[in-house]
Amino acid sequence: MKQYPKVVVIGGGTGTFAVLSGLKKYHVQLGAVVTMMDSGGSTGRLRDQLGVLPPGDLRQAMVALADSTDIWRNLFTYRFENGDLDGHNFGNIFLSSLEKITGSNERAIHYASKLLKTKGKVVPVTLTKCSLCASYADGTVLEGEKLIDYATAPRPRINYVYLSPKAELNPNAKKIIVEADYIIFGPGDLYTSIIPNLLVNGFAEAIRECKAKKIFCLNLMTKLGQTDGFKASDFINEMCKYLGGNIIDYTLINNKKPDRELVEWYARSGDAFIVENDLETKNFKWLKVIKADLLSEAKYEQSLSDRIQRSLIRHDGEKLAKTLEALIFRY
Amino acid sequence: MKQYPKVVVIGGGTGTFAVLSGLKKYHVQLGAVVTMMDSGGSTGRLRDQLGVLPPGDLRQAMVALADSTDIWRNLFTYRFENGDLDGHNFGNIFLSSLEKITGSNERAIHYASKLLKTKGKVVPVTLTKCSLCASYADGTVLEGEKLIDYATAPRPRINYVYLSPKAELNPNAKKIIVEADYIIFGPGDLYTSIIPNLLVNGFAEAIRECKAKKIFCLNLMTKLGQTDGFKASDFINEMCKYLGGNIIDYTLINNKKPDRELVEWYARSGDAFIVENDLETKNFKWLKVIKADLLSEAKYEQSLSDRIQRSLIRHDGEKLAKTLEALIFRY
Repeated sequence: MKQYPKVVVIGGGTGTFAVLSGLKKYHVQLGAVVTMMDSGGSTGRLRDQLGVLPPGDLRQAMVALADSTDIWRNLFTYRFENGDLDGHNFGNIFLSSLEKITGSNERAIHYASKLLKTKGKVVPVTLTKCSLCASYADGTVLEGEKLIDYATAPRPRINYVYLSPKAELNPNAKKIIVEADYIIFGPGDLYTSIIPNLLVNGFAEAIRECKAKKIFCLNLMTKLGQTDGFKASDFINEMCKYLGGNIIDYTLINNKKPDRELVEWYARSGDAFIVENDLETKNFKWLKVIKADLLSEAKYEQSLSDRIQRSLIRHDGEKLAKTLEALIFRY
Repeated sequence: MKQYPKVVVIGGGTGTFAVLSGLKKYHVQLGAVVTMMDSGGSTGRLRDQLGVLPPGDLRQAMVALADSTDIWRNLFTYRFENGDLDGHNFGNIFLSSLEKITGSNERAIHYASKLLKTKGKVVPVTLTKCSLCASYADGTVLEGEKLIDYATAPRPRINYVYLSPKAELNPNAKKIIVEADYIIFGPGDLYTSIIPNLLVNGFAEAIRECKAKKIFCLNLMTKLGQTDGFKASDFINEMCKYLGGNIIDYTLINNKKPDRELVEWYARSGDAFIVENDLETKNFKWLKVIKADLLSEAKYEQSLSDRIQRSLIRHDGEKLAKTLEALIFRY
């Protein structure tokens, strides 16, 4: 029997949601390894108040892989907009309750995956409770993914990020990484969705040892207070720094111009800018660059309770998946 | 094919939970019609904040009838003890989310019943959003089940209770009442768990019209601020007043003496007293009185978050069910 290629997506958040949603329609065996350092919103409050592992990134990846056509998908994305539960997501509450009752994050994922009929495994990168910390060029240190993620102005460059306490790689995450044929990083915020995975003890080693082709989905935009002024080469260099070598095989870069209106809107706000592709001017001969239209054409909409501003210029899951599929089956 | 007798329990709260849990082991077709006037605790907050029908009594009855041996039963009884969700019950949150998503309380019950594999139907007495009101002998009026239920001292006698706004009988509740062979009232707090059902427009008519034998589980104890000083005849008289006639066929009365220690503990607190059986001294010739040991021997335990003090002297579900089974199959 022919085995479909094993594809593992590394990340967390909406970028991972997009790529998983797109890829699940293709003939691949999907897995997702997600960050467990989210400290914001519903997730952060459940983490702090109940002592559970942060459920948000797991939940998003599970919903992306859900094959259930019944009520479960709606339940897992439902967010309360009033009262005590204001801002909480039902899926987060559900995962947290399961973890409390079973005493195990993995059993919680097991039960939820069955209900959602997920096509593929969702695996926390670590089961260690830890915080993301960032040390900036001016000596400042911020602790907590939420604080690092949320900025109202540009910040000094991040010298390095680390986890406190040190976290150990989840053996199940190691297993699907080692067995993968393709590993896809992102898309997602560099320091808060992608690199937190790379900081877990044993993760970079597992990536370096595994035979999989490694693909990095380059960011479309810089992120305020996190990757201000970053060009394509900065993203690649940071990835290689935390992975411990030039071990990314491919990078996907969008070549479709976003609406001028949107770009100008961003420029006026001063918050975020299109990431310039400077790879040809730098010494990245080891890296294969794949250019394609990867841009979402979805109109902007934001629910009342979606408290964190989402990027308006974002990746399209279908386009990403189509490009990745071409790479996987034709290269 | 032999049809098992159709038994419908009318009530809400822990008494209904006990009798349903006990009866589900016998060869009867079970149904439960429950109050929808709870305004306290997790239930009241979800009702007020989300605009859903109060989920608490439904949830308790569903768990009582649950045949599921998997995680669902644990989930539905799980109560959070920290943070934003403090005091909320997962089952309540689940039912409320389902109601919000499907836009229908009945669809919410349908989905939850499937997950819990309930042996029998749980039906809200009304789908009208309404409050319980009580008018006392001194002219005071209290609105809200929570206020009526919670007292710290004896109160003047309740002249009458009513619903605001007026509520209509749920057609599904009417259906199972009309088709029942046996209707069991309680056990439960007279004015806050049993009589609220009787106040719904069309309920008393449905009871009077149906051919079922009607059984009232007499309370073990008086309740502070609600049935202070009540004897057995007072309970029966109040039931008949709201039902519109002497249409109760049987009353179950406990004849087992509770621990003297417990009775004395209650007497010292001045809160609650054993209900005296004065039925033989009154003109209740139409009523068949069944005496049996109905007393729970469970040791007192109270979870930290169980904020409402439960009665220590309470009915035993198994004993109740055994006595009811004898009545149903042998009389």
